[in-house]
Amino acid sequence: MKIAVLPGDGIGTEIVAEAVKVLKALDLPFEMESALVGGAAYEAHGHPLPESTLNLAKAADAILFGAVGDWKYDKLDRPLRPEQAILGLRKHLGLFANFRPAICYEQLVGASSLKPELIAGLDILIIRELTGDIYFGQPRGRRVATDGHFPGAEEAFDTMRYSKPEIERIAHVAFQAARKRNKKVTSVDKANVLETFQFWKDVVTEVHAQYPDVELQHMYVDNAAMQLVKAPKAFDVVVTGNMFGDILSDEASMLTGSIGMLPSASLNSKNQGLYEPSHGSAPDIAGKGVANPLATILSAAMMLRFSLNQEAAAQRIEAAVQKVLVQGLRTPDIYSEGTTKVGTAQMGDAVVKAL
Amino acid sequence: MKIAVLPGDGIGTEIVAEAVKVLKALDLPFEMESALVGGAAYEAHGHPLPESTLNLAKAADAILFGAVGDWKYDKLDRPLRPEQAILGLRKHLGLFANFRPAICYEQLVGASSLKPELIAGLDILIIRELTGDIYFGQPRGRRVATDGHFPGAEEAFDTMRYSKPEIERIAHVAFQAARKRNKKVTSVDKANVLETFQFWKDVVTEVHAQYPDVELQHMYVDNAAMQLVKAPKAFDVVVTGNMFGDILSDEASMLTGSIGMLPSASLNSKNQGLYEPSHGSAPDIAGKGVANPLATILSAAMMLRFSLNQEAAAQRIEAAVQKVLVQGLRTPDIYSEGTTKVGTAQMGDAVVKAL
Ligand SMILES: CC(C)[C@H](C(=O)O)[C@@H](O)C(=O)O
Ligand SMILES: CC(C)[C@H](C(=O)O)[C@@H](O)C(=O)O
Repeated sequence: MKIAVLPGDGIGTEIVAEAVKVLKALDLPFEMESALVGGAAYEAHGHPLPESTLNLAKAADAILFGAVGDWKYDKLDRPLRPEQAILGLRKHLGLFANFRPAICYEQLVGASSLKPELIAGLDILIIRELTGDIYFGQPRGRRVATDGHFPGAEEAFDTMRYSKPEIERIAHVAFQAARKRNKKVTSVDKANVLETFQFWKDVVTEVHAQYPDVELQHMYVDNAAMQLVKAPKAFDVVVTGNMFGDILSDEASMLTGSIGMLPSASLNSKNQGLYEPSHGSAPDIAGKGVANPLATILSAAMMLRFSLNQEAAAQRIEAAVQKVLVQGLRTPDIYSEGTTKVGTAQMGDAVVKAL
Repeated sequence: MKIAVLPGDGIGTEIVAEAVKVLKALDLPFEMESALVGGAAYEAHGHPLPESTLNLAKAADAILFGAVGDWKYDKLDRPLRPEQAILGLRKHLGLFANFRPAICYEQLVGASSLKPELIAGLDILIIRELTGDIYFGQPRGRRVATDGHFPGAEEAFDTMRYSKPEIERIAHVAFQAARKRNKKVTSVDKANVLETFQFWKDVVTEVHAQYPDVELQHMYVDNAAMQLVKAPKAFDVVVTGNMFGDILSDEASMLTGSIGMLPSASLNSKNQGLYEPSHGSAPDIAGKGVANPLATILSAAMMLRFSLNQEAAAQRIEAAVQKVLVQGLRTPDIYSEGTTKVGTAQMGDAVVKAL
């Protein structure tokens, strides 16, 4: 079992170190190899995703990823900015299925912006298509407008697009995930305005015929953004495109109030996957030893489950995380009165001990 | 002063009737003329935006709009569906500047999903560009893919685009609005992924040079969806494109918990405007006399302010609405224990009395 370890920038190195600690403590035959990615790779090699890093990732069964990005790279040309590394990995490895659970841990209900009764027990799974849509659609660029409101003016443009097989495969992922949960899929679109998402809706409906045991609901993206605030627990599995999924999965994470706890997985059709926390590189707290490593540790658990076929080990990690929460250990982002504040490494050590 | 009154579908007729009642009580020289729009117009004339309705709207100084849409029209071809009426009005009248205030009324803090301390006193203004972006961009449609992940497969596509003058004019609107408020603009983009929104960011930054007294902040759309949940009061004016604005303005409305109270205005460069509640046609409660008319009544106040140059009358209406809230009158959507439940017409009558 080969794992590529890509810590990245900001708090990335600190949180990944704790996840690696936990993986090592499992005493399984992993081969782990690290490489630079993002701003760190740009500084060392002049590119956020050097060929050596990409090749390591391609050859691995799974990638444990930290986070990339820092304000200081904002002025670089777009192709050299840290976030291009994550877009490049998604594209080159074909990681089309992004799993973003939004779970509210019993012990952390108070951290949410929402009233406790609305958020306690939340467990939704957002499945975001990750290699299509307006993220990668061509053509795109700048040009002189030949029609529209101001012909002759300078304009910029992008292309949103989805092909039938792209929609079919992510729909299958969603229905299959729902089968293992509460058997309800909400497909989010904007069919009332966009050709792409009328097609999305049609194809998802077609695929649904193969899953009569799963309930399918269609919802416009603006309404979904509202319903997530109003009654998040009404959702089970949410499936949507790359752009809407970017927005809604972040909204849903923040609803829990504890984004520092939320893992994610991005899989291709061979179950090769990239695993990373839902939060970012947080340059403001980098190097201080206060970042919450639990989202990354839980991402490692998802890696064991989805890409390495080690369900038992995944459950051991998840149970250990539960245990440290019950013990009252908290990094500053989830701290509340009456609990014990700990740093990044202490939290990692506690999880190892609880395994 | 000519007002086109377009009640539309569902609760549209009921709530607009109350707003008309309030306008009449002001005893100002309005000329009001009604016409069918949306599903109602489709049933009578075979089109959701008949030429007679469009001409009436074009000839008016302002349009008082209810709401359009009903599930029963879902199977019509897209160009005949009710929501095409609102898209058509925006396009044909050039209503590029959409004002969507998200205000939390002191008396209704409890109706929010959010904890009171996060939402009490909320007063943000979302300014959404309304005639450009992927809503109207050409080309769009279905075709056989010639490249991408599945060449040869059927695909659907849309074009996102913004020209420089389109971005400039909405940026001016936002900076000018901020000057009358707390002098802070958050421009929401996705410059890290989209050409269109890198351009958006560049142009907004350029326009900002003319408003040194206003603070400008740039924020990615995914982060904006999170920050609205985490700390909504940190925003003052938010300016963004048509698609992101659709999602974020609805999210922000729902945060208040009382979307039945929120008006909106859509203006063109001649200050001609369309005024409508932020909520929809709610076919489930139509005809029952229980819909909240206050968002529509407050939209009429915005109409007096922006298109009819009647600031004093606008303030009279707003004060009257405040008064009925203080009196404890509540339609079912905002009802809570200890207040008085009233119907649509009773609420309208109470506002008239409070004028
Ligand atoms: C960094 C950025 C390109 C990326 C995205 O938009 O996909 C991020 O927001 C995410 O969700 O992983
Ligand atoms: C009905 C629909 C086309 C419309 C939109 O997407 O603009 C609506 O959601 C709105 O926000 O007014």
